[in-house]
Amino acid sequence: MIKLTVDLGERSYPILIGPGLLDQPGLLSSYVPGRRALIVSNNVVAPLYLDKLVTSLAGIGCDSIVLPDGEHTKTLSTVNLIFDKLLADRHERSTTLIALGGGVTGDLTGFAAACYQRGVNFIQVPTTLLAQVDSSVGGKTGVNHPLGKNMIGAFYQPQCVLADIDVLGTLPRRELQAGLAEVIKYGLLGNAGFFRWLEQHIDALLSGDAELLAEAVKICCEEKARIVAADEREGGVRALLNLGHTFGHAIEAAMGYGVWLHGEAVGTGMVMAADLSRRLGWISQDDAWRARQLIGRAGLPVVPPPEMTAQQFMDLMAVDKKVQSGKIRFVLLRQLGDAVVEADIPPALLQETLQAGDRLCQ
Amino acid sequence: MIKLTVDLGERSYPILIGPGLLDQPGLLSSYVPGRRALIVSNNVVAPLYLDKLVTSLAGIGCDSIVLPDGEHTKTLSTVNLIFDKLLADRHERSTTLIALGGGVTGDLTGFAAACYQRGVNFIQVPTTLLAQVDSSVGGKTGVNHPLGKNMIGAFYQPQCVLADIDVLGTLPRRELQAGLAEVIKYGLLGNAGFFRWLEQHIDALLSGDAELLAEAVKICCEEKARIVAADEREGGVRALLNLGHTFGHAIEAAMGYGVWLHGEAVGTGMVMAADLSRRLGWISQDDAWRARQLIGRAGLPVVPPPEMTAQQFMDLMAVDKKVQSGKIRFVLLRQLGDAVVEADIPPALLQETLQAGDRLCQ
Repeated sequence: MIKLTVDLGERSYPILIGPGLLDQPGLLSSYVPGRRALIVSNNVVAPLYLDKLVTSLAGIGCDSIVLPDGEHTKTLSTVNLIFDKLLADRHERSTTLIALGGGVTGDLTGFAAACYQRGVNFIQVPTTLLAQVDSSVGGKTGVNHPLGKNMIGAFYQPQCVLADIDVLGTLPRRELQAGLAEVIKYGLLGNAGFFRWLEQHIDALLSGDAELLAEAVKICCEEKARIVAADEREGGVRALLNLGHTFGHAIEAAMGYGVWLHGEAVGTGMVMAADLSRRLGWISQDDAWRARQLIGRAGLPVVPPPEMTAQQFMDLMAVDKKVQSGKIRFVLLRQLGDAVVEADIPPALLQETLQAGDRLCQ
Repeated sequence: MIKLTVDLGERSYPILIGPGLLDQPGLLSSYVPGRRALIVSNNVVAPLYLDKLVTSLAGIGCDSIVLPDGEHTKTLSTVNLIFDKLLADRHERSTTLIALGGGVTGDLTGFAAACYQRGVNFIQVPTTLLAQVDSSVGGKTGVNHPLGKNMIGAFYQPQCVLADIDVLGTLPRRELQAGLAEVIKYGLLGNAGFFRWLEQHIDALLSGDAELLAEAVKICCEEKARIVAADEREGGVRALLNLGHTFGHAIEAAMGYGVWLHGEAVGTGMVMAADLSRRLGWISQDDAWRARQLIGRAGLPVVPPPEMTAQQFMDLMAVDKKVQSGKIRFVLLRQLGDAVVEADIPPALLQETLQAGDRLCQ
């Protein structure tokens, strides 16, 4: 088992990574401060792992709520179902909410934990690659609004993140691919060596090689822990983690949440960011193409939905959380492995990227 | 103008108290960090003070949303109306939410500010006595759930609280009385001298004497600022501010939110707390009666609703946020001006208080 620490002073917490962690009796329960917990899961993950989790929490009084799966459930009314359950079962301020599932489950549960009785304990047990490498670490919680993704939420850190690599064995291929988008993101934004490692190992990762997946989860969590420790509330460097997300969130909103998986939209969004970086003269044609190639080899879409117009992108990106003084701020690539935030994009170049379609990065 | 400071390190902020503050150009706008604001008010206060507030904020781009008045509107779906407005008007992370109204408006708006884009700036302009002396200070925000009051929320501090004493001139008498409940609370829980001052001046306060009201607001804010600075997230001493609230919240929930005003329920709740303190042998018969007398002289109810049974009280108090390990924790009086939190109450004595009706404190 690997144990990393997210260093946030009194809000510091460990990330536990390794195989078989859910089978270790007493491991997770040592991070539950009180005597009761509510496990929040979804109808895909619960049949596979809920019993195992409850068994590993022997001695803790566990209730559970199983929600429908999917990004379209990431709403304020779903959070309200968690509140209903907590109050109906009379959970007190000392209770712990445990998220067992992917990014949607973690975001919903974390936000419920932040708000229930003005804040209760919270633990993440991510069961998708995407959640293990990205969304379970760093304390961003929240829900979507019809007018924008993740518009309602809180910064709220968990007590602990437990990433059992074995659970990736049951992950559908499409979900594994979506998770690889965030893995590739860490290479592109800040670690050129990791990008090259991914170019070498992408096929093995895609085929589910457990050792390589564990290594990828570890490297991504290290990168994320470092960035979050430096900038918990996204005043600066943390914004780089949104590489591909400004374009990607627009795709998710335009298509209806859940039609494109978050990771798929981020994959295409990163291709668009690479394309725009190339048009700005920042990265070479070759490097932009390498980015597109790796994303494509991970089984991710590399072309935005043909039915989306440039105007639709502009309208949806205008409500991005990174907008300042009416200007959209893009995360772009100075080179492979070096991202920056930039607000002054010549409108003509942006239009070219939005209209490039299959010619992105070519 | 009096300027107090709530001392919370980097989250410290001023409370400005005095007459005519809303007429001072530039005073409030100096506390707005960005260039835009959304004013949240209700349909009683907005016709009286919204234009004045907008005028005082010359130079800031102000939008506004006017909600229905009353405790029954303090729900998650009302908060969602604020999110709708913020997104429809494309407010960015740098925006400021300004609450113009009483405790309900402040609690709703503060919670919306805590959650919109994971946290935006927030200013309180309390227009009721209750909000000026209590709810606008200290960062407790939130909404009610059908199963319990203030069960969903956040600790979220404002940039500034502006209490213009002149607005109390338009406050309906019933609202003034409700505010006096929280004023009396500060005397009972920690300041015996202030309790005696109130015994002397209650009639003048009730008749709206502006100078005495300003003095009362100042003293209460000083007491609250001291307690909040010592214990921002209610790990200890801050719980004393809930004197009368465990009984009071049960009354509010049982009668339907808004039927009894919060202050009215707290008034009766404090009489019940004094009664239970007397049965425990902590305060004398005389002192319990003095508490009931002062609360009654402030025009507040001193007897719980006759239709409420002891069992109803027990059921509703069981979901109080102060419950620990299944035990209700009461704020009670060691003496007038000295409150403590106590969980080990002999059930027979509690039953006597719940069934005392008009014989409370007699």
